Amino acid sequence: LPSPRWILALDVGGTNMSAALFAEDESEPVCLRRRATPVEEGPEGVVDAGVGLLAAVREAGTREGVDPRRIVGVGAGVPGAVEATRGTVFLAPNLGWRDVPVREYLLERLDLPVVVDNDANCAALGEWWAGAGRGSELMVCVTLGTGIGGGIVREGRILRGVTGAAGEIGHVTIEIDGRPCGCGNHGCVEAYASGRAIARRAREGLETAGDSFVASLVDGDPARITAETVAQAARDGDGYALELLGETARYLGAALAGLVNVLNPDRIVLAGGVTEAGGPLLDPLRAEIRKRAFAASAEACVVAAAREPRLAGLRGAALNFRREVLEGDR
Amino acid sequence: LPSPRWILALDVGGTNMSAALFAEDESEPVCLRRRATPVEEGPEGVVDAGVGLLAAVREAGTREGVDPRRIVGVGAGVPGAVEATRGTVFLAPNLGWRDVPVREYLLERLDLPVVVDNDANCAALGEWWAGAGRGSELMVCVTLGTGIGGGIVREGRILRGVTGAAGEIGHVTIEIDGRPCGCGNHGCVEAYASGRAIARRAREGLETAGDSFVASLVDGDPARITAETVAQAARDGDGYALELLGETARYLGAALAGLVNVLNPDRIVLAGGVTEAGGPLLDPLRAEIRKRAFAASAEACVVAAAREPRLAGLRGAALNFRREVLEGDR
Repeated sequence: LPSPRWILALDVGGTNMSAALFAEDESEPVCLRRRATPVEEGPEGVVDAGVGLLAAVREAGTREGVDPRRIVGVGAGVPGAVEATRGTVFLAPNLGWRDVPVREYLLERLDLPVVVDNDANCAALGEWWAGAGRGSELMVCVTLGTGIGGGIVREGRILRGVTGAAGEIGHVTIEIDGRPCGCGNHGCVEAYASGRAIARRAREGLETAGDSFVASLVDGDPARITAETVAQAARDGDGYALELLGETARYLGAALAGLVNVLNPDRIVLAGGVTEAGGPLLDPLRAEIRKRAFAASAEACVVAAAREPRLAGLRGAALNFRREVLEGDR
Repeated sequence: LPSPRWILALDVGGTNMSAALFAEDESEPVCLRRRATPVEEGPEGVVDAGVGLLAAVREAGTREGVDPRRIVGVGAGVPGAVEATRGTVFLAPNLGWRDVPVREYLLERLDLPVVVDNDANCAALGEWWAGAGRGSELMVCVTLGTGIGGGIVREGRILRGVTGAAGEIGHVTIEIDGRPCGCGNHGCVEAYASGRAIARRAREGLETAGDSFVASLVDGDPARITAETVAQAARDGDGYALELLGETARYLGAALAGLVNVLNPDRIVLAGGVTEAGGPLLDPLRAEIRKRAFAASAEACVVAAAREPRLAGLRGAALNFRREVLEGDR
């Protein structure tokens, strides 16, 4: 038997980044490494940090018996709009990037083929491969982070659309004359249900909320409230936090019911910090989708939390490389 | 050279139905026949009428030299939610049908294989084959009729979703606490921009609209206003009608901009009576999509009126049969 081929994966986030090594057919990574993303050092600084992580992973792998000559390439995920054919990030608001040729930068620094895609697409593919999306035929993955990202996976392939920009689930309008959204539109679901929006709503309502753990979790300083604070308080049964998550579920449910009607998927997977709240977010979300979507389509669609959101992006980046380069699929 | 194989196509609408014969590789039909849909005679009555139309088309074809032994099957489109594998219409509100085994009924009456699908899916496929969707990689087709139907065609295949119910573009929420929709949800785009909704808005505003052709086109009887009345008045430059179409474009644009962000298609094709208004509907619709969707995705997407909406359903039904049966594609 020949030794397996290996794929390096890199997942760049707005706060943290990670890298790992995957055997071609294995969804469990080896030699996982993490670090903070040095956003302040700019695109090349971040890429250099990524190359450093990849080198560390490669060395660790070699010590564990991986034949470095069998490492065949790099799959990377970045938080922004990616022109996937060229691997250029044309806009990454959370990193402050515009028109950054990430693939070119990586190619210059590594003697390996590189495939770059959007991080939410990678997370979707990773959850399809070895998470809550396993066995799904058509899956919608929603990442509730600072913003709302998304990815659609059909028969194990990312649905990219004609310029690689598909999956922007955060930017469907749920309120035609609603709140302004960072994208320039009004009434996007992101303006109501993203981590940033949840924190804003939590701060706005705090004074009239009465007793709530949310206030004590931030030592009474509303400026420190994040979506994770709300999720934590909700897990402890705080009424105010539960109400905030219920509202969030209503907004998200309106957007996702529309996608259930349009796409008729068998799975919706939710990732991102606030989804760690679990039932207090997912139960009202499921109810809202059932209330709004066609009955048969809602019934056919399982709504679940991502199984391993922290690994999904790396997994998907590795599988994406396998699909694109090893299987020549594009 | 062997003589070509032929496919019979049947398009059942809520008001009219039509049938035609297609050579396997030809998008131009021969021996087209139309008639009113005898809705009041119930599902089997409508199917009998369809079988009659198909027999007439078959006879006419034989007279024109088609070898009847080379007619290999029937593709049919019906206005409802179709379970495509079994060819059962589980709900067709415009016909008043529920759980009607259309494919079985046709099989009992015809000695040919039969493929049944939703009419909006067929229209989308037909416009992709030989209409405004030609050459498109990923196309969204919207049918503005009494309700709002839709179909998504990716690389020449209908995107059906996991239970065959995908494409229900009329039922995305654009106003979370908005108008009640016939589907049970609130704020669906269908409740604002369907033919029925346009007519309702036209009636509601007529008294305060001042001078408008719309009133004279219906001899002052608001109950007779239809979306087509509005389209006709708009083509003649009527200010009130233009305003109504502008509002319609705003509602539709909000829904379609979301789909542009989620799917990143290269084509949106609009069919249905009211789209015959042309520019007065399409121009503000294009502007609304550009205003709301991501710039790169909006730029990549051409918005056009269907080229031959009256033939699209038949064409798509024929191509659907070819894909499913002759090419064994499902």
